[in-house]
Parts: sequence; structure tokens; C-alpha cells
Amino acid sequence: QQLLYEEWANYSVFYKYQPIGLVRKYFGEKIGLYFAWLGLYTQMLIPASLVGVIVFLYGCATVDDNIPSMEICDPKNNITMCPLCDRVCSYWKLSTACGTARASHLFDNPATVFFSIFMALWAAMFMEHWKRRQMRLNYEWDLTGFEDEEEALKDHPRAEYEFRVMQKSLKKPTEGKITHAMEKLTCRDRLPAYMTNIVMMLLMIGVTFAIVFGVILYRISTKAALYMSSSPTTRSHVQLTVKTTAAIINLVVILILDEVYGAVARWLTVLEAPKTEKNFEERLIFKTFILKFVNAFTPIIYIAFFRGRLLLLVGRPGRYLYVFESYRMEECSDGSCLMELCIQLSITMLGKQLIQNNLFEIGIPKLKKLIRYIQSEQGAFQEEERQKKLRRYETDHFLEPFGGLTPEYMEMIIQFGFVTLFVASFPLAPLFALLNNIIEIRLDAKKFVTELRRPVAARAKDIGIWYDILRGVAKVAVIINAFVISFTSDFIPRMVYQYMYSPDGSLHGFVNHTLSYFNVSHFELGKETMDPMPYGYPIEVCRYKDYREPPWSLTPYEISKEFWAVLAVRLAFVIVFQNVVMLMNDIVDWLIPDIPKDISQQIHKEKILLVELFMRQEQGMINILEKGGSSSIKETYRRSNNNNNSTTAHLFSKEQSNGTKQF
Amino acid sequence: QQLLYEEWANYSVFYKYQPIGLVRKYFGEKIGLYFAWLGLYTQMLIPASLVGVIVFLYGCATVDDNIPSMEICDPKNNITMCPLCDRVCSYWKLSTACGTARASHLFDNPATVFFSIFMALWAAMFMEHWKRRQMRLNYEWDLTGFEDEEEALKDHPRAEYEFRVMQKSLKKPTEGKITHAMEKLTCRDRLPAYMTNIVMMLLMIGVTFAIVFGVILYRISTKAALYMSSSPTTRSHVQLTVKTTAAIINLVVILILDEVYGAVARWLTVLEAPKTEKNFEERLIFKTFILKFVNAFTPIIYIAFFRGRLLLLVGRPGRYLYVFESYRMEECSDGSCLMELCIQLSITMLGKQLIQNNLFEIGIPKLKKLIRYIQSEQGAFQEEERQKKLRRYETDHFLEPFGGLTPEYMEMIIQFGFVTLFVASFPLAPLFALLNNIIEIRLDAKKFVTELRRPVAARAKDIGIWYDILRGVAKVAVIINAFVISFTSDFIPRMVYQYMYSPDGSLHGFVNHTLSYFNVSHFELGKETMDPMPYGYPIEVCRYKDYREPPWSLTPYEISKEFWAVLAVRLAFVIVFQNVVMLMNDIVDWLIPDIPKDISQQIHKEKILLVELFMRQEQGMINILEKGGSSSIKETYRRSNNNNNSTTAHLFSKEQSNGTKQF
Repeated sequence: QQLLYEEWANYSVFYKYQPIGLVRKYFGEKIGLYFAWLGLYTQMLIPASLVGVIVFLYGCATVDDNIPSMEICDPKNNITMCPLCDRVCSYWKLSTACGTARASHLFDNPATVFFSIFMALWAAMFMEHWKRRQMRLNYEWDLTGFEDEEEALKDHPRAEYEFRVMQKSLKKPTEGKITHAMEKLTCRDRLPAYMTNIVMMLLMIGVTFAIVFGVILYRISTKAALYMSSSPTTRSHVQLTVKTTAAIINLVVILILDEVYGAVARWLTVLEAPKTEKNFEERLIFKTFILKFVNAFTPIIYIAFFRGRLLLLVGRPGRYLYVFESYRMEECSDGSCLMELCIQLSITMLGKQLIQNNLFEIGIPKLKKLIRYIQSEQGAFQEEERQKKLRRYETDHFLEPFGGLTPEYMEMIIQFGFVTLFVASFPLAPLFALLNNIIEIRLDAKKFVTELRRPVAARAKDIGIWYDILRGVAKVAVIINAFVISFTSDFIPRMVYQYMYSPDGSLHGFVNHTLSYFNVSHFELGKETMDPMPYGYPIEVCRYKDYREPPWSLTPYEISKEFWAVLAVRLAFVIVFQNVVMLMNDIVDWLIPDIPKDISQQIHKEKILLVELFMRQEQGMINILEKGGSSSIKETYRRSNNNNNSTTAHLFSKEQSNGTKQF
Repeated sequence: QQLLYEEWANYSVFYKYQPIGLVRKYFGEKIGLYFAWLGLYTQMLIPASLVGVIVFLYGCATVDDNIPSMEICDPKNNITMCPLCDRVCSYWKLSTACGTARASHLFDNPATVFFSIFMALWAAMFMEHWKRRQMRLNYEWDLTGFEDEEEALKDHPRAEYEFRVMQKSLKKPTEGKITHAMEKLTCRDRLPAYMTNIVMMLLMIGVTFAIVFGVILYRISTKAALYMSSSPTTRSHVQLTVKTTAAIINLVVILILDEVYGAVARWLTVLEAPKTEKNFEERLIFKTFILKFVNAFTPIIYIAFFRGRLLLLVGRPGRYLYVFESYRMEECSDGSCLMELCIQLSITMLGKQLIQNNLFEIGIPKLKKLIRYIQSEQGAFQEEERQKKLRRYETDHFLEPFGGLTPEYMEMIIQFGFVTLFVASFPLAPLFALLNNIIEIRLDAKKFVTELRRPVAARAKDIGIWYDILRGVAKVAVIINAFVISFTSDFIPRMVYQYMYSPDGSLHGFVNHTLSYFNVSHFELGKETMDPMPYGYPIEVCRYKDYREPPWSLTPYEISKEFWAVLAVRLAFVIVFQNVVMLMNDIVDWLIPDIPKDISQQIHKEKILLVELFMRQEQGMINILEKGGSSSIKETYRRSNNNNNSTTAHLFSKEQSNGTKQF
């Protein structure tokens, strides 16, 4: 333990590889595998964050050459924009959105497309490398053989399950003892539990959606209220204030719900009464994962895909759509939605990491220790002794929860989600994850070595269901990134403009092209702005960001042909991106063999050695017998051999073959 | 052999399961596995062809209720269509396309969408079932253990490879003997071969494309020539004649090229000099597959996706696009391209099956026999004897080609391609495949039993690279079917019309909506038709099938908004279809365990038995030794045991674990 503490659970050794062998010896394979996985993940994050930083720096370097943001910032392009809401909002100049447009470019440039392809491949590489690493560890730790015993143990029905079965058989005593032995919980017995499960899961997801919607309403109403305030400084800070507070509220809600959902998932799984321990664990993990994933990503998905995208819900100047009659559906601010997505992402990710992972993980054990210390100080000795015992048991129980590694894995998987799912909009995510993980490894190490009871060493051959979940996340990441690039960023509209509409093949005029015209005289009664001349001259035509027909066309304000063309190109991009990335993933999968070559050779050699050994041993046995000469011995040996030998040979060949199977 | 002939290689037993066990005993596992695979495939085709027939019958039943074809056939809808080419073509009435439109409906109805989803799932189920079947056969045949010996043999470098290595080492004699042992063909040595490979593959694919293009030219020019002929009966049959002859030409070309490509692939692989026999086989199969696949499917893919779809290549009346200045790019005939795709598919598939598989497979061996028989009749005895020996050797060599099962598998995989890839346009494909396979199994059986030398029994654990190819085809099938439904059939335009444009939510007026207007006076000089008044009255406006602006719009004959809207919906459908099907495939993959439950239990039991057995044997040994009492024996045994035991235990645990690994 001391060695581990020095070599591993120490921040000063962050640059070294972890002493996985030692960890495994002390804590058992299951925890060893977790740290090996975490180590590989952190290691793989290094190139990802490097490339991410380069992409970000590319954005920084090209921000001054970016034609659309130059056009927005150019004071000569004196474009008057339509009011963003009816009556209370006023006209505004596009050049006021200069800052946002420039900031958007940092995350919305062609390098981002490259980066999200890179990250999809990165995820595939990570999976492949983990398979290899796992295989190597299995080999080095002699792990592969344990399952027979352990599995049998895990296959044993849980006590709760047995209890339920007993209850059931007690209820119908007429059938008596005969059926008792083979009694099982059938689908029908489980129906109520399953129904409760589904309903509760949907309810919980509903709660998440409701809360996200609540935050949206907060955002809309605060914005409206702040717009109406007369102080100009307040109004100029409106955007930032509202966005940031909303993101923080979201974060707090996520943190609270995470705890609630953990408890709900456990309760539901207990209700379900799965048969075996392994089943129980898998179901629990699956439920917890679904709930926490939905919880963490719903606000982000809303911002990425729904905010201001629901064409029919946003409306156009003079015909904005309202929720509850007074709050307008929100649009993305000027620039693109990518900026807001980025803010939301970084706040959620950093906040979750800092508060939930680090603060909670360091703070709570420390706090518990303190409480225990204080409690042991005060009170009478006798009573305190008894209480302390109870409390220590209680607190210890609290410190070492049943699900062992589940929260650790969950935390990392959610982080993996942040790193891969929306990486197209936030290339710095891998860097943040890397920084977090360097601390996290040592923090977890410290926690395991010093803060927690030494857990019962458990063996494990692989990381189980977590691998499937990782694969699932990586698959979903491909399609989500495709949608982020084509729908959230302005990449596709820029491309379409450049190749279909631009007179000189450059982006000059792009901003003008994306803005539709609105004739101010078309405002309906009671919807016109209260401040018709903010710039001292009458405004006849204002602009708004949408692809709609101009007022002078045959069908004014209808969705224009450009809208459909851009939509078609966006969808085509999604198809191309998804299929190209999937193809590349398959190629990576195919190029990197699952078993490292040296290990497979070693296994092959050992197999040959084993066969030889058996031959020699058999031979030796016969020699001994012949030398021994006692017929009775021979007889005994023969008999025992004759009974078994054919079976043995048969079994052995099967055995061996199963082994070779995978190589 | 007699038993096999009676029980298996007989058409009269087509309804029975094949006696796979017997086949395996006589021919070895490799051929046994092929017939098992073929059997499962044929068996799985039964439900597929049933559903296919139902879908087809649904099309037949609803053909009279189909509003678009009713509207086309309705003589009251007296729509005058624009000439299909400049000058020589004349106006025509839409109602003449009535037959085609009605026939199209047979293959282009909502049931087809359901059917292609069904077939994608069917393919996934087939893969899963095959995995299970293979596992069961492996278990029953004690197959899983053989690899050690065989693999080692296969890993041995091929003679050609050794020769090349020797040549290389002879070329640079300065380095002498030291390097000789570890000499390998490096990438640099192989570069010319690789380059030749790539160039030849591209060239061959280029040849295929060129031939397809040639057939297109034939089709265009014949059509033009026939159009110009004055006989009205000839002209009315133009469409059918041209289509059918073109399809037959395609078929013949495919059949010839198939043979050529087989030889080319072999030559290229020899040139490449792969290291091991296994490598050689895999590379050969891969190359042959690519070439034959491209060969079989290029004309079909052209018809499905490129014909008349390349917007800019087709042009519009008065501005048609020409190849070589005189031949117009072809359009799909009225109705939709699906009909032509269907004709091409059925001719290629049936023709390939009948001619290549059955005729060649029965005919050529019979012919050879006949030749041999005639030759043995004539000529002097002495010379004949010698010649006959030579010839029999030669002919036998020809009868039993090296690649053993490759052509059989290849034939089936290409058929699998026909069944899955374009099933959206031809729901009867599974039925045809089924009929072919019922004959094919017995034919192959007959061939193996009677016509060929008994092949050297080879063991095999699985169907090797063919499984990967099957998986690849099934994956490609999903995306191709998505594209066939959304781009080749009129499913999406009908949907869009129904939900976006239709005044009453029905398909009434759909035909009118898809036809654009053309003002006859807009024909350029020299492009107007030679027959301006075919119906006795002057024609002012004619219609053509495209989404373009009418002549009276601001931008006449530009691509219209409807075109982009339909395109967007089409692409969206592809995304939804692909992802839904992939998700369902994953679920199927997850629901059906790879190993049948009874087998996995059996293996588990046997493993426990094996461990017990070893224990007992060890125990028995010690007993014997104790009974025997001779110290020298004991000593010997101990020594041999001590040396080995730890290693044995170690190895055995590893062995066992590798075995369990996968379960």
C-alpha cells in the first residue's frame, strides 16, 4: 500500500505510466482494468487534444481573414436588421453582432470538419487499442481462465430473486412441492415491474425535458424583461448574462438530477428483481447510463438542433411565433448557434468535472472524515463507542458504495460523450478532458489508497457492458457530428453560396445572401416596433436571417428556393459524412488486429508446448508403469484411462480448439 | 458414395434437409460447410420469397386503385407531351404510357418500402443464424481444434514466394549467406507488383464502365434509328425491343467478362506473390469478388441512379444534352426508372443463373465426358492409351480447378447481392434465387459426387473471407436500397405531393404536378419538331417530366423550388432509412446470441467434466504410485512432474481461459 501511495497516488508522478501491475496485485483485476482503461483513455486524449488545440489556433489565426465576419464588422455595410420581437424590440445594426461573429469563427471554420472526422477515427482507434491492451493484460495477468468459477458464482440467483420466487410459490400452495424446484419468475410475474420501469424511465426523461423547457422559458422571459429595461448598459449585456445564467442553472439541475437518477435507477432495478448478480449490475448500469446521458445532453441537443431551427416555430418578423402568447420562441443570436452551443458545452463540461468529480470526490470524503473526527471527540465514551461503531459502519458503507466502479466509469463515459459527441462545435473538449483526467487518475488513486476501505478484490476479464456503451456512444457521435456540422454551423450555407451563387467564387456577399428582406409596412397592426426611427431616418426595409422570398416576389415571405437547396445540400452532407466515416472506421477496425502479434505468437508457442508436455507426461507415465511392472497398478491405470481417455482426448481437442478459435 | 448419391445428389429429394453429416464425412469439413451454408441460405430464402410474392401480389391487387396510373390512362386527361428529342421526335400523348405506368406500380408501391426494410433485417438475421449454425456444426464435428496443424501448414511460405526470395538474395550476392535466412520480400520489392495490381484493377473496372457506356450508346443510337423509321408498328415496339436487346447484350458481356476477370485476378495474385497459401487464397477471392461484383452490378447501378437523373446531362425540351453531338442522353421512359431497373435486373439475374450456373455447370462436364468418350473410341490403341492418360489428366485437371469452392461461393454471393442490393425494385428476386438454389444444391451435389474427382478433404472452421464479404454486401445493401426507394422510385415525390401540395390530401393531380410546362415557341431554330401538328391542331404548350419553372415565371425553365424540396425530402428519407435499419440490425445482433444456448451449456458442462477428469486422473496417478511403492518410480514421476507441473498448471489455466473467453 505504501508503495502504491508513493508510486501512484501522487500528483507529482503525473507524467509517468501508472504501475498497473501493482494496482492489480493490491486491488484485484477489476479495479486494475479500470485504471488501465483510464490510463489508455488519458493517453489517447493527448493527440486528440493536441489536434484540437491546433484547430482552435487555426481558427484564431484566420479570424481576421474571415470574409463573413469582416463583412458583418464593416461599418460601411450598414445593414438594418428587423426587431427580434414584436413591439418592444427595436431595429438594430448588424455591425453590433461583430464580436459574436468573430468569436463564432473560432469554432466554425473548415478545420472543424476535419477535426470531427479525425475524432470519429480517434474513437475507433481508441476502441481498437483498448481491445489490444485488454488482450495483453488478460495474457499478462493470466486472467482469461477465471470465468468458470466466478461466472458460476455470478450465475447464482440473487437472494432477492429467490425470495420473490418463494413468495410466488407460497401464494399458490395447491400445486405444492413439485413445482417449487423449477419455479421461475415468468414474464407475467415481472410485467408490473417492467411496466413500472418503462413508465418511470419515461417519466424521468420527461422530467429532464420539462426542466430544459423551464430553463428555456426562464431565458425567454428574462431576455424580454431585460430588453424592456431602459438602461443601455444592461441591454448590451443581456445576451451574455442570460446565456451564462441559463447555462449555470442547467448545470445545477444536471448535478442534482444526476444524484436523483442514480437512486431511481437502483430502485427500479431492485423492483425488477433480475435473476443473477451480473444481470442486476448490467441492468442497473444501463438504466443509470440512459438517465444520466439524457440528463447531461438534453439541453445541449436542444441548443444544437432545435433552437431557432424549427422553421415553423420561429416565424418571421411581424409573424413571430409565441409560446404562452407572450414569450417568443428563441432564435440563435446573430452569427450562428454554434457559439451558444459552445458556451453551453464548456460550462456543462467544466462545471460537471470541477464540481461533481473533483469537488465531490475530494470534498465529501474529507468532510466525512471531519465529521467522524468531531463526533469521536464529543460525547460520553461508552455511548460514543457504540455510536462510533455504528457510524463508522454507516459512513464506511457510504464511502464504499455497492456499485464499486460504476460511478467512476459513468463519469468517464459521460466525459467521453462530451469529447466525441459535439466535438465539431468545441475542439477544446479533448484538452479539458485530458487536464481533468490527469488529475482524476491520481485523485482516484488517492481515494482508493487512502480514503476508502480496501475493496474486496474482484476478478474481471473485460470492462463488460461499458465497452458496449462506449461503442454505442462512438456510433452516435458520428451521426451527431454530421448533424452539428451541417445544421448547426454555417459551413454548408457558405459552401452553397460559394459554389452556387457567388459571382466570383469567394464568400464576398455571403452575409447579404443569407439575410431576407422585410418591408416594414407589412407589420400587422399592434406588431410594429414602438421605436420606428432609432437612427434618425425612416426605415423602409429591414433584414432578417432566413431564406425567404423578398416582399417584391409573387409569393412574399414564402420559404425560398435557396432554403430548400441549402437543406438538400445539408442532408447530402450528412449522408456523405456518415458513410465516409463509417467506412473509415471499418478500415481501421480491419487494419488493426484485435490481438497484438507478439501475444498471439506467444499463445501459439505455449499451445505447442502444452501439447508436447502432455505427450511427454503420458509417455513418462507409461514408462513408469512399465518400469514398475506391477500388473495391478497397470490394470488400475489402464482401467481409469480406458474409461476416460477417449473422452479426454475428445474434450481436450475441443478445449484446445475453442482456444485457437479467436486467433 | 452410393448413399450420398441416393440421399443427396438427387432432384427427387429437394424437399428434404441435406445429409450434411454424410457430406462432411465423405468430402471433408470445408465442402460440408459450404453445403451447410448453402442449405441455410436456401432455407432462409423461403420466408423472404414468400413475403416478396405477397408484396408483388399486393402490387397486382392495387394496380387498379392507383391514382397516378389511373390519371395517366384516363383519356380525358389529354396531356400533350413534348418530343423526347430534337427535330425527329414528335409530340406524344401521356395516355400512351398507360401500360408502363400500370406495370411500374407493381414494383413501385408502399409495400416495397416495407419489403426492403424486411430484407435488410432478413440479411442481418441470416448472418446471425449462420453464426449459430456454424458454431453448432463446429461443435458437432469437433472442428474447433484443428487449426494448429493446418494453420501451421498454411502459414508455410508458398514455393513461389520462396523462389522470389531466393531470386532476390541471388541478385545481391555481396551480402552473402548471413542475410539469406531472414530475407523477406519488403514493400519495396513488392511495389511493382502492387502497382500492376492497382493499375490492372482500375483498368478492368474501366473496361466494365466502357462496355456499359457502349451499351448505352447502342441503346441511344438504335432508339434514334428506330424512331426515324416510318413503320408505326416498329415504332410502337421500339421501347421494348431496345430495352430487351440492350439487357441481353449486357448479359452476354457480363458472362464473357466474368471468365476473363477470373483469369486476370488469378494472374494478378500470382504476380503479387503473397507469402502464405491462405494469404494467396484471400487475396485472389477479394480481387475476383471486386471485379465480378463491379461487372455484374455496373449496368444496374447506372440504370438505377444515373440514367435520366443527372439533371444537368438530360436537359429540357429545346435544350437536350447530346453525347457526340448527335445522340441524346437517355431518359427513363414514362412511369419511372424502376420499370427499366426491374427488366435489367430480372434478365441479368435469370440469365446469369440459367446460363452461367446451370447450363455451364451441367453442360461443360457432360461435353467433356462426351469428348473423352469419342476420343477413346477412335485412334490406335497404343497411342490412344497414352493420349487418353494425358487427356484424362488434363481434363480432370480442368474439371477440378484449384480454387475448389471459390466459383460456387462467388456465384452465391453475387446472387445474394441480387437478392439484397436492389430488392426494393424487384421483390421477386428472392423467389427466383430460391428456385435456382433448390436446383443448385442438387446440381452441385451431383457434380461433386459424380462429375468430379473426389477432392482432397480439407478441414475448415468457418467460411472464412466469404463471411466478411457477405457482411459487406449486407451493409452496402442498406444504403443502396435507401437510394433506390428515394431516388429511383416515385415514392418520395408522391409523399411530398400528398402532404405538401395536394389540395385534398390525395394523390389526385400528382401526375399534373410532376410535369413542367414548355412553350413550343421557345424551341430554338432547327430544334423544333418536324411534325408540328400530329393531332390536327396547333400545339402551344407541351409538358415534360421535370420540376422546372413554367414559361410564364420570372425565371422560365429554371429548376423550381419543388425540385429542391423533393430532393431534400429524398435525402432525409435516406438518412432516416439507413439509421433506422442499422439500429434494427444492431438490435437483431444483440437479441440473437452467437452461440445457441444448448451448445454453450454443453460446452460449459464438458469443461467442468474435463477439470474433474484431470483431477481424478492426477489423483489416480498418485494412488497408483503410492500403491506401487517403488521409490524410484515415485522419484521419476515427481521429477518429471516438478519440472512441468507449474508450467502445466499455468498453461492449462491459460488454455482453458482462452476457451472460455468467447462464451
